[in-house]
Amino acid sequence: MRVGIYPGSFDPVTLGHIDMIKRACAMFDKVIVAVLINADKQACFSISERMRFLELALKEASINNVEIDSFNGLLADYAKRKNACAVVRGLRAVSDFDYEFQMALTNKRLNPDMETVFFTSQSEYMYLSSGTVKQVAALGGDITGFVPEIIKQDIINKSVNKN
Amino acid sequence: MRVGIYPGSFDPVTLGHIDMIKRACAMFDKVIVAVLINADKQACFSISERMRFLELALKEASINNVEIDSFNGLLADYAKRKNACAVVRGLRAVSDFDYEFQMALTNKRLNPDMETVFFTSQSEYMYLSSGTVKQVAALGGDITGFVPEIIKQDIINKSVNKN
Amino acid sequence: MRVGIYPGSFDPVTLGHIDMIKRACAMFDKVIVAVLINADKQACFSISERMRFLELALKEASINNVEIDSFNGLLADYAKRKNACAVVRGLRAVSDFDYEFQMALTNKRLNPDMETVFFTSQSEYMYLSSGTVKQVAALGGDITGFVPEIIKQDIINKSVNKN
Amino acid sequence: MRVGIYPGSFDPVTLGHIDMIKRACAMFDKVIVAVLINADKQACFSISERMRFLELALKEASINNVEIDSFNGLLADYAKRKNACAVVRGLRAVSDFDYEFQMALTNKRLNPDMETVFFTSQSEYMYLSSGTVKQVAALGGDITGFVPEIIKQDIINKSVNKN
Amino acid sequence: MRVGIYPGSFDPVTLGHIDMIKRACAMFDKVIVAVLINADKQACFSISERMRFLELALKEASINNVEIDSFNGLLADYAKRKNACAVVRGLRAVSDFDYEFQMALTNKRLNPDMETVFFTSQSEYMYLSSGTVKQVAALGGDITGFVPEIIKQDIINKSVNKN
Amino acid sequence: MRVGIYPGSFDPVTLGHIDMIKRACAMFDKVIVAVLINADKQACFSISERMRFLELALKEASINNVEIDSFNGLLADYAKRKNACAVVRGLRAVSDFDYEFQMALTNKRLNPDMETVFFTSQSEYMYLSSGTVKQVAALGGDITGFVPEIIKQDIINKSVNKN
Repeated sequence: MRVGIYPGSFDPVTLGHIDMIKRACAMFDKVIVAVLINADKQACFSISERMRFLELALKEASINNVEIDSFNGLLADYAKRKNACAVVRGLRAVSDFDYEFQMALTNKRLNPDMETVFFTSQSEYMYLSSGTVKQVAALGGDITGFVPEIIKQDIINKSVNKN
Repeated sequence: MRVGIYPGSFDPVTLGHIDMIKRACAMFDKVIVAVLINADKQACFSISERMRFLELALKEASINNVEIDSFNGLLADYAKRKNACAVVRGLRAVSDFDYEFQMALTNKRLNPDMETVFFTSQSEYMYLSSGTVKQVAALGGDITGFVPEIIKQDIINKSVNKN
Repeated sequence: MRVGIYPGSFDPVTLGHIDMIKRACAMFDKVIVAVLINADKQACFSISERMRFLELALKEASINNVEIDSFNGLLADYAKRKNACAVVRGLRAVSDFDYEFQMALTNKRLNPDMETVFFTSQSEYMYLSSGTVKQVAALGGDITGFVPEIIKQDIINKSVNKN
Repeated sequence: MRVGIYPGSFDPVTLGHIDMIKRACAMFDKVIVAVLINADKQACFSISERMRFLELALKEASINNVEIDSFNGLLADYAKRKNACAVVRGLRAVSDFDYEFQMALTNKRLNPDMETVFFTSQSEYMYLSSGTVKQVAALGGDITGFVPEIIKQDIINKSVNKN
Repeated sequence: MRVGIYPGSFDPVTLGHIDMIKRACAMFDKVIVAVLINADKQACFSISERMRFLELALKEASINNVEIDSFNGLLADYAKRKNACAVVRGLRAVSDFDYEFQMALTNKRLNPDMETVFFTSQSEYMYLSSGTVKQVAALGGDITGFVPEIIKQDIINKSVNKN
Repeated sequence: MRVGIYPGSFDPVTLGHIDMIKRACAMFDKVIVAVLINADKQACFSISERMRFLELALKEASINNVEIDSFNGLLADYAKRKNACAVVRGLRAVSDFDYEFQMALTNKRLNPDMETVFFTSQSEYMYLSSGTVKQVAALGGDITGFVPEIIKQDIINKSVNKN
């Protein structure tokens, strides 16, 4: 069984992430969507909120061979524990490129059995990021088409409360 | 009447900004230089100082069809209120590119009637930024040729007081 | 009256070009779509075919303040003869960037009164080029959604005859 | 059974290609290395020579779930005929990026069931290309470490005869 | 005597830095490795620790024409005081490019007699940074091959104590 | 004695090249400007014309520690014969980057004792290339400020005769 890991902050999950998960699920027997617990980075939503958003969005999208998890520590070690052969990453734009390469090569050093495979974003999601979603929501803009419908109101509420 | 908006932090305005404003003023009937009020970002100069610097520098440059303003909230909404048909942005280097594209495409989503148009920096201003100006001034370097003469001393004073 | 020039090979015109022309026409009083006569570059369609394709596609799109022309020689000189204040160019991807900057700065040197303004491609046209259209058509692929419907069959016929 | 296609010119195959094939073979049940028959592009080695080089190099590398083939026409159609779910491409450097994205998005349009997945080159092969190999060999340089040992002499002979 | 300066944070020094220093030492009569005292940036190791790491690593590497120093203020002024004709910088990836160019052009403005020369990273160090080293060490990963052996344990201890 | 080689086509030499040569001459005891004899590439000026242009331009610029030569074959071998420790290259823009890195890493493989060092173009020459010069001259544009005055008329004459 080939297991792929799709790691990220998912703060919050966007329609671009969901598209990526769907496509990864067609390439692997199982895909683990792994929310990174990063103490250093200031998040907008808690780990459990982010996991709940993923669950709601993926249930809506009717994907079966997907598992939602969270992890801390080295991705290379986590992949080993999960018997994953690959990490899946999306490439949106050239500015992602150098960072992603650095991570892929570092992970290959730390776990030579783990591959990093990249998918390109669909063109309509190419410039969509969690950061944009939060910024637009915080300024009262319409985030329809940016995030799954089922979590849209939760994101808006949080943004309103925060400000 | 075609109105263009040139938004930015202008913290502080540089000769590169002034050049961009001049060129935008030749393309539009009116250009609104709009200082972004961003609570999240730590600024060196206050909104009113930045607007005063712009006024002094633009008076010196004898540009008539320009208006100085400040705004918060979504740029797409601000442009609608101002009946602007376009946002003007300068592209200096490749690293500006992805961010600017993301903003342009997001703004097009939020306000389909608003266009983003890009000008290239003149080559002598290509690597000039407000950040460089502040860094050089803070370290006691000479910022002549980086900022309008009329505000140079104010910037130096602020940098000295800050350290 | 502000006149903008949109120069290019248009070999053949794509839906990405048409989108760009529409948006340029909202920014200028008149836009001249100028087909570059380039003796060095091997073209697929003749200048008159390319101009006819543009006419058909623009009539279909109901744009009024547009003029179709062809030119050879320096763009900077052509713009001067046409009293144009700006050249309009689309930026699709980072790889366009350096070439376009070089051209913009060279043209500024040769004609300081002429500005180059850039629009970003819409995301659905971001990776569409005349080259892709010809390649896909030549290999028997479906070019629907790549070029205006009204010229699609002409492009396919040419590709078939050529092979 | 998940089938991946690794298309290319392989003119000639390099150690970078072999590394990519090995890694793709760990991700798919079968990998088809597909030599593109491109009438337009001047090749150094014939299709049959290039396929023989691949066979020799892959036999040496003891990879089993690989098949060598050649194709012309649209990659999207070829993949459909071969029941392949994915095209595999290596990304070496930023300059590959835009071209590869354009191809990936065009192929997705032409065959929505086909995915393009990218692997990063290992750092030692990051700047290795068939073009470099041919250029170095033609100028009498040492291509050890650039191509599989078993085909090295053939490449050198060709380069000598050609000049 | 031609003196070159290799400035940086060196927080901590990596094998990529050591390689760059060796190569710079072959090009200049003396190379000053200059640790930047930057009050704004949160460092992991103190200036004296970073200088000690450099000393240990360079002693191990048997380089003679090198001097270790620290500085604050403008690099352009520091170079003048040290009678250095050049600043040496490594370029790893495209994302370094724009920042390095901006610095090089700004420094040329501030000190026209000072040149900036760039070396490319060796391919095995191309994606290695002090940031990666600290991140991997903090998460308990193996940093062998990333930093000089002689300082490896010190870096690990610091990372453990910090967490 | 440290010898640097500045290789290129110089078809024809531009003011950007001259600036680079001056700066390289301050870093090395001797700089060899080496015109590449490339049978594959269609040149506008002959090797002897290009060398004469270099001689005229460098005499005008009063540089002493420079030698003009031509070479074919591998640059790595030529540098060895000339006892050069470094190859000097100018980086103008991001699009130069990947190609230059590939060359630098390949040359390091072929001749480990030879370094490649990069200078940034001055901002006024950043977008100037021999190709632009020829294109502007061929179309009757003014190339003042692009090439040394002393060879300007020769370049114009050639361009006129060619067309």
